Amino acid sequence: MLASQELRAAVRAGRFDKPTSGQAPGFVQANLVIVPQANAFDFLLYCQRNQKPCPLLEVVEAGGVEAKRLAPGSDLSRDLPRYRVFRDGKMAEEATEVSALWRRDFVSFLLGCSFSFEKPLMDAGLEIRNMTCGTNVPMYRTNIPTRPAGVFSGPLVVSMRPFTPEQAIRATLVTGRLPEVHGAPIHQGDPAAIGIRDLGAPEYGDPVPVREGEIPVFWACGVTPQEALLRAKLPLAITHSPGHMFVSDVREEHLPFLHYSVR
Amino acid sequence: MLASQELRAAVRAGRFDKPTSGQAPGFVQANLVIVPQANAFDFLLYCQRNQKPCPLLEVVEAGGVEAKRLAPGSDLSRDLPRYRVFRDGKMAEEATEVSALWRRDFVSFLLGCSFSFEKPLMDAGLEIRNMTCGTNVPMYRTNIPTRPAGVFSGPLVVSMRPFTPEQAIRATLVTGRLPEVHGAPIHQGDPAAIGIRDLGAPEYGDPVPVREGEIPVFWACGVTPQEALLRAKLPLAITHSPGHMFVSDVREEHLPFLHYSVR
Repeated sequence: MLASQELRAAVRAGRFDKPTSGQAPGFVQANLVIVPQANAFDFLLYCQRNQKPCPLLEVVEAGGVEAKRLAPGSDLSRDLPRYRVFRDGKMAEEATEVSALWRRDFVSFLLGCSFSFEKPLMDAGLEIRNMTCGTNVPMYRTNIPTRPAGVFSGPLVVSMRPFTPEQAIRATLVTGRLPEVHGAPIHQGDPAAIGIRDLGAPEYGDPVPVREGEIPVFWACGVTPQEALLRAKLPLAITHSPGHMFVSDVREEHLPFLHYSVR
Repeated sequence: MLASQELRAAVRAGRFDKPTSGQAPGFVQANLVIVPQANAFDFLLYCQRNQKPCPLLEVVEAGGVEAKRLAPGSDLSRDLPRYRVFRDGKMAEEATEVSALWRRDFVSFLLGCSFSFEKPLMDAGLEIRNMTCGTNVPMYRTNIPTRPAGVFSGPLVVSMRPFTPEQAIRATLVTGRLPEVHGAPIHQGDPAAIGIRDLGAPEYGDPVPVREGEIPVFWACGVTPQEALLRAKLPLAITHSPGHMFVSDVREEHLPFLHYSVR
């Protein structure tokens, strides 16, 4: 049994409801967004138009709960440690499973997550500041609009990691090879140039120190679609709870081949 | 005025209705598929699941005829030299414009085309056999099924170019960098391994000689979605006529940045 399968079994049995960071190391983790079929074309198109923040790994059509490509045998209504239920654009409740809420018209979207580029960055000899600090990565709302699709629109959200200019080049090369998990950075240097006023006050996560000689480096972030979801004010939508991701059976090394294989 | 804009203006004015190969060199050309909104989610998902044969460049929502990202000011109902109109899964007519048939619920899909990797292959010192022969590239139906989505399914169609084994490695490196236009090959060597019986009898295009010491190299092909469209037997669908592509204002060198930029 794979470590990812063991973790999902523990979650499903109610034995694990914590954040998934560091769990089943080496396996791809994913953001989850569930919307009714009536909104599914718009959301799929939103992801297609905004691939940096919304790198689609798999879509499960209405009537299905299994992510067949990422994790055969999985159940998206029970295999995440914690869910958020949104009603009319507001977070209504958190839950450890959503099988009782499940509807036949739910379409599920699994999106790549920057957890998958942290190990390649560390393997390249780079320090990830928020890991050193033992805190969540800082995330900021920018003044860069995403490309709208139907009812979905909103600002690009970015995550930030500080590096020296030389390290930033290396980090760009490493993450540029991983478009399935946000790819290369979208900005480096002056936060104000993308509408960020205060690095010390992130909209999500925790601030980290930027040391002398370092610049902040910004990546498109998987929180972006959640902002679009809030603005769309759908009657009902479900996501994972931040940090409580879907753990798949795909090894991180296989990510570059997920979309570019035909078998 | 860009060469691509000039060409579209000539097409729109009825002064050009020929195949677009070699026209407006350096600008990205695209396959066109138009389906009613009722089938648009399924087709968008089919493209998402089959990115090798169906690399989506832009989707134009219902009510629109302009490919705003690929070609501002364009009109998809008039700017292609030749269209095919399909009714109930059969080709009903060819037309030089479809503005009279246009419906408010039409959704248009523009897909990458292997024309865009021919110049990079030649720049890498490789001979493209069908260009030497002055014929259309040979295309074959394989026994590899595409991943179905709703009403859309069918076999993968491939294009073939012969190379020596060493040249095939070079061609893999060159096209592997261009996932927006089918990317790396999907097979090389034995045609029977992917269900091709006779290289001399392609289902589309013209056969080319494979010389002593060469192997056939196979790429996923943009004809694949047309096969899926035929099988889906939609009441109405429209595509470009083979070889009569949409000529965009995007330069081939900019393709790698189309989806990976946020501005």
